[in-house]
Amino acid sequence: MSEQRHRRLIQLTRLLTARPGLQINLPGLAQELSVAKSTLSEDVLLIKESLEGAKLGRVDTQVGAAGGVTFWPDLDVSTVRKTLQLFLEELTNVDRLTPDGFLYVTDLLFSPSKIDGLGTLLSERFRSLGIDYVATVETRGIPLALACGRALRVDAVLLRRDHHLSEGSSLSINYLSGSTRHVQSMSLARRAPVRGGRVLFVDDFMQAGGTARAAHDLLKDFGAEVVGVGVLVATHDPREKLVEEYSAIMEWNRADEGMGSVTPSSWVRQLVQWEASDD
Amino acid sequence: MSEQRHRRLIQLTRLLTARPGLQINLPGLAQELSVAKSTLSEDVLLIKESLEGAKLGRVDTQVGAAGGVTFWPDLDVSTVRKTLQLFLEELTNVDRLTPDGFLYVTDLLFSPSKIDGLGTLLSERFRSLGIDYVATVETRGIPLALACGRALRVDAVLLRRDHHLSEGSSLSINYLSGSTRHVQSMSLARRAPVRGGRVLFVDDFMQAGGTARAAHDLLKDFGAEVVGVGVLVATHDPREKLVEEYSAIMEWNRADEGMGSVTPSSWVRQLVQWEASDD
Repeated sequence: MSEQRHRRLIQLTRLLTARPGLQINLPGLAQELSVAKSTLSEDVLLIKESLEGAKLGRVDTQVGAAGGVTFWPDLDVSTVRKTLQLFLEELTNVDRLTPDGFLYVTDLLFSPSKIDGLGTLLSERFRSLGIDYVATVETRGIPLALACGRALRVDAVLLRRDHHLSEGSSLSINYLSGSTRHVQSMSLARRAPVRGGRVLFVDDFMQAGGTARAAHDLLKDFGAEVVGVGVLVATHDPREKLVEEYSAIMEWNRADEGMGSVTPSSWVRQLVQWEASDD
Repeated sequence: MSEQRHRRLIQLTRLLTARPGLQINLPGLAQELSVAKSTLSEDVLLIKESLEGAKLGRVDTQVGAAGGVTFWPDLDVSTVRKTLQLFLEELTNVDRLTPDGFLYVTDLLFSPSKIDGLGTLLSERFRSLGIDYVATVETRGIPLALACGRALRVDAVLLRRDHHLSEGSSLSINYLSGSTRHVQSMSLARRAPVRGGRVLFVDDFMQAGGTARAAHDLLKDFGAEVVGVGVLVATHDPREKLVEEYSAIMEWNRADEGMGSVTPSSWVRQLVQWEASDD
């Protein structure tokens, strides 16, 4: 009997935690596991206490006829801290500097094992805002945007650099890049389902904030509202950005000579319990 | 005492399944949970039996001084089947047809809740090949490629359409698109860490296979070998593609009039227990 309960608790824990943020229907689960609803409720309560007690996640139970359970994992602080350490090192690694003075980091941005945790971290900053979509402009910010979408349980919206035939008619905006003063453009397919939504704009890098500003303006024309801006790295200068508010995971303080320094933002330090000795 | 074991089994199940494909160190876990190694081994065995018995995943234990456990989730067949149903409907939805005869599906491709499961599905096809990297060419295949990379626990490699200053020097290839006969190009940064690797090339769509062929040739110049090609949708015609082998999740049989039909490939039907009545 006890053995049976052990097995049920193990299977139930896996079933409840396998799809974070998704409500799982309790009556359906009781049927699937051939167990009384009252027994299942007891098991769910024990799982909730055990996971929350060990800071492994939050289990929300919704009462009522439908009755459901939703699991939200806690941030995996030790893994995120290790990933941050790695990015801090690599973002000032002279071997990554190209002859034109850019930093090659595409390999890091396109590594799910590295970027997914940072997406969850960034999402923590916007979880209470009722985000409906995460938008990004192609190409290098896409993995971080998708990771944020996954963590917030919403879809991503892709802003294109050029107009693409395969997307049908689209709305475009031209803007001056805040840092290079070059004219850039971005466009969004008219069919993109974003109208009326609350949008989080995500990108890999922010200098003056011209791209985030243009995305804000373009989405406004769609009747969507950018309610948050999140980036992986923001440069320390210029201090005043073209968007009012944004959250960067890391700040890059560029030096006149050498690579300068990259540090986690203060809200990140707090969330991952960063020690001064970690720098 | 029993209550304590219940809690430990719940926490352990979560810890072991939270990061699929990653080896978890058992001695470290024993220390973290303040439990004897022999007790932990017993618990792990019970978790292995319970999860494998309910077809919730595979638990591999590695013996030896280090001693580790790796969890591989089973394909979530019912969710994948629902996602496939949705794609089959939307890929023949005339409302998605643009005036130029293309199909707008970017919103579906950029939905983590839809594309992640399909990435896991596609990866099943290549799991035994010892894949080191998943490569894709920007832009719409990126979410599927990242989902495959996550499922196979490897990084993604981004082939660009244009040469980008920020990526440093790169190797480029020009090729004739097999279907439109237009000249296209793709490039890969010389710094991309792919040399000597076994690569899975992933894209959203394949018609004649010219893009997959070009990726194969470009990666060969890097000393990397494309050992598999996987796409979301392949057109039925032309029957002969420019790559020898590929796996498509769905096949699109285009009609002269109307949208034609989209069906799951035979290997997919088998994996997800597709019934003829599901079509």
